[in-house]
Amino acid sequence: MRYRLIGDYVLTMDDHATIHHPGQVTWEDGVILSVGPGDSDHSPVDQEIYAPDHLVLPGLLNGHNHAAMSLLRGMADDSPLEEWLRQHIWPVEAKLTPDDIYLGTLLAAAEMIRSGTVGFADMYFEVDRVAEAVRDSGLRGWISRGLVGFDDPGEEKLAWSREFARRWRERGDGRIVPMLGPHAPYTCPPAYLEKVAEAARADGLAVHIHLSESPQEVRDMMRLYGKSPIQIAYDAGLFSVPTLIAHGVQITEADMPWLTRLTGGGVIACPVSNAKLGNGIMPYRLLQEHRIPVGLGTDGAASTNTLDMFQEMKAMAWMQKLQNQRPDAFTAYQALWAATRGTAAVLGHPGGQLTPGAPADLIAVRGRSDHMVPEWDPVANVVYAAVGADVDYTVVNGEILLADGIITRFDEMAVIKEARDRGAALKWLVEGESHGI
Amino acid sequence: MRYRLIGDYVLTMDDHATIHHPGQVTWEDGVILSVGPGDSDHSPVDQEIYAPDHLVLPGLLNGHNHAAMSLLRGMADDSPLEEWLRQHIWPVEAKLTPDDIYLGTLLAAAEMIRSGTVGFADMYFEVDRVAEAVRDSGLRGWISRGLVGFDDPGEEKLAWSREFARRWRERGDGRIVPMLGPHAPYTCPPAYLEKVAEAARADGLAVHIHLSESPQEVRDMMRLYGKSPIQIAYDAGLFSVPTLIAHGVQITEADMPWLTRLTGGGVIACPVSNAKLGNGIMPYRLLQEHRIPVGLGTDGAASTNTLDMFQEMKAMAWMQKLQNQRPDAFTAYQALWAATRGTAAVLGHPGGQLTPGAPADLIAVRGRSDHMVPEWDPVANVVYAAVGADVDYTVVNGEILLADGIITRFDEMAVIKEARDRGAALKWLVEGESHGI
Ligand SMILES: [Zn+2]
Ligand SMILES: [Zn+2]
Repeated sequence: MRYRLIGDYVLTMDDHATIHHPGQVTWEDGVILSVGPGDSDHSPVDQEIYAPDHLVLPGLLNGHNHAAMSLLRGMADDSPLEEWLRQHIWPVEAKLTPDDIYLGTLLAAAEMIRSGTVGFADMYFEVDRVAEAVRDSGLRGWISRGLVGFDDPGEEKLAWSREFARRWRERGDGRIVPMLGPHAPYTCPPAYLEKVAEAARADGLAVHIHLSESPQEVRDMMRLYGKSPIQIAYDAGLFSVPTLIAHGVQITEADMPWLTRLTGGGVIACPVSNAKLGNGIMPYRLLQEHRIPVGLGTDGAASTNTLDMFQEMKAMAWMQKLQNQRPDAFTAYQALWAATRGTAAVLGHPGGQLTPGAPADLIAVRGRSDHMVPEWDPVANVVYAAVGADVDYTVVNGEILLADGIITRFDEMAVIKEARDRGAALKWLVEGESHGI
Repeated sequence: MRYRLIGDYVLTMDDHATIHHPGQVTWEDGVILSVGPGDSDHSPVDQEIYAPDHLVLPGLLNGHNHAAMSLLRGMADDSPLEEWLRQHIWPVEAKLTPDDIYLGTLLAAAEMIRSGTVGFADMYFEVDRVAEAVRDSGLRGWISRGLVGFDDPGEEKLAWSREFARRWRERGDGRIVPMLGPHAPYTCPPAYLEKVAEAARADGLAVHIHLSESPQEVRDMMRLYGKSPIQIAYDAGLFSVPTLIAHGVQITEADMPWLTRLTGGGVIACPVSNAKLGNGIMPYRLLQEHRIPVGLGTDGAASTNTLDMFQEMKAMAWMQKLQNQRPDAFTAYQALWAATRGTAAVLGHPGGQLTPGAPADLIAVRGRSDHMVPEWDPVANVVYAAVGADVDYTVVNGEILLADGIITRFDEMAVIKEARDRGAALKWLVEGESHGI
């Protein structure tokens, strides 16, 4: 099937920052054939989507998520961090069944498809069910099982992760990319990180890890090992494989000798989560100066509440301007770059731009609503004014997953109903326990 | 006409933080008659709105706006502050006609109605047209002409403002409240502020002023007058009338001897604008300790891009948590309080809560969409997960201005089309001039 989407603007995010107005994108078999002004390609297509009010752009890529945590959305927000984890999040996570993981991931997928996200990097448990939900949703997923070194003395879980990677590499029709997911330096001692690095090198896998998220983590690591989280990761050999570093809020100049030796990957900023948990603002300018790729992610919905990458783009720009005390410290274009090309670079993925030969991953955002006019600057409107709810079309790997606001691949209403019921049941269980029942 | 709205939750925001689930609100002649559980009032009504999936809450109150600047949305974002004002905003403002002011304010009203805002405090020029747009939109407006002391040596503009107040007090059927709007201490010298304070006292008017917005302002005022902006306002006698202080980002402990002598009013936080312009984070905790009312506002769409108060609630919570480096430094409930009761307190308005006798200003937010389930905590879902686009009903003064997503009072599509065309014409004019045409 050959498709064409015609829109009011096409923001290509290519190397020349090309914008077509109006514009069109034509694709076939999951690959973009042509991108250009509205009248530039007249070749016959099987389906033409005419969206003359819409802004067409590359689909957004969410570089850090724990998708199934959508089932924990809004649970114990605003609690102190330790209490939040120990008294709220962990006890409920212990109750999640494999079916819950599938359900939560599919709920997250519905939210992501609706808000213009075409792929996400995930770290969680019961990841066969995560992979099944990704497969069924139509999204792209970079999937890792979260590994806690202290719980894996015989390295069975690491071995399982390698097995998982072999299984799903063959089954995912290119949309699923398994990764290894050592959780963080405070849960994985250096010797364990070395084993992970060895396995990643041997199997050609990339790594997804939380690093330098909070001031507490940096203090603890300095005290325990005399090294920053970044140096610990480097010394363990992780940076000899592509490494997706989630957060990186507390990265400093002193980390640069290690961080610049990354052989792939980069840092995923999660500005909403980092603000909401009080962890700080990531040093974008420093990373940019050292040419470290920076992408954007949401973190799990238990801390961020929504998986709307438009919200993350806004928050990224606000936080950077705030940190630098200058409105020109970060631009709308840089925010959109981070959410597309930036995350793609960290993932080693050719997407994030609309160019011939790139994956057919694109979205159409409704213009001409009251908060999207006038049209002084389409990029500013997309980043600073649009929200996920303005997305009407989401195309992944050439397939239309959101068609004029309708999710095409699965029964969204059934997922919502099931998630609501399951959340109520979990709440009842937890409240019963806290009353000693 | 007597109405009843039945929803899944009613968040009353009353003094006991009462939540009904399910719940109902009944009103007549613009006043709430009863609020309670779903089955608590069986009295006959003329119209019943059955919204069993919705969360009902007091309408949000936007405490600081320049509504007509919606026509400048997205113009020259990310420029340095001086360049932004001098090279971009002011030249275009000089071209705005009275009809543009009406159009821009109505565009802003459409956006506010759609995103659950029931009233706003505005400062701009050509304010007869602002008042007409407020009258026609159905919203509440606290309207002031922005006064620049340096441009008003004979105080004709101040006299005009008093005249405007007399005119509109009688015409606004209670929805329009005129105020005096001395712009800021750096545009209004102390002697002029004294004249404004005198006029406000004489006419029983409240004052709307920008104070302590940026570090630069505080430095300039200290250098010029040896006083902080807050002390300047106090010494000029402004605090002897209710004073709405916009921003207050740079307020410190040293301001408390003056600020605590406010005889009404309070501070309106504009967290998105303050971040986006790099001005900082307002000292909420300090103000709270000294019992200064704190509300929320958007500032104009030229800096904030949207007028979505749900976005401001999120930004307020994120910024406060960030500033205090603790997730428990500020709660979802505090954010919702600021956007309802807080702004109402600053405005001296009895709204912001759903209680018998309060104004019938309420909204219904769609629950049971993918980003609003499960229901661990309805307040967290409303503040951290909902966006303006989730609002389906907006009721102001008892009148349904948004009915299941349809704006009832005016032709929204015509306003959008006109705003889009006028924006394009202004852009063409400005670009022509910058090319010497
Ligand atoms: Zn995480
Ligand atoms: Zn302002």
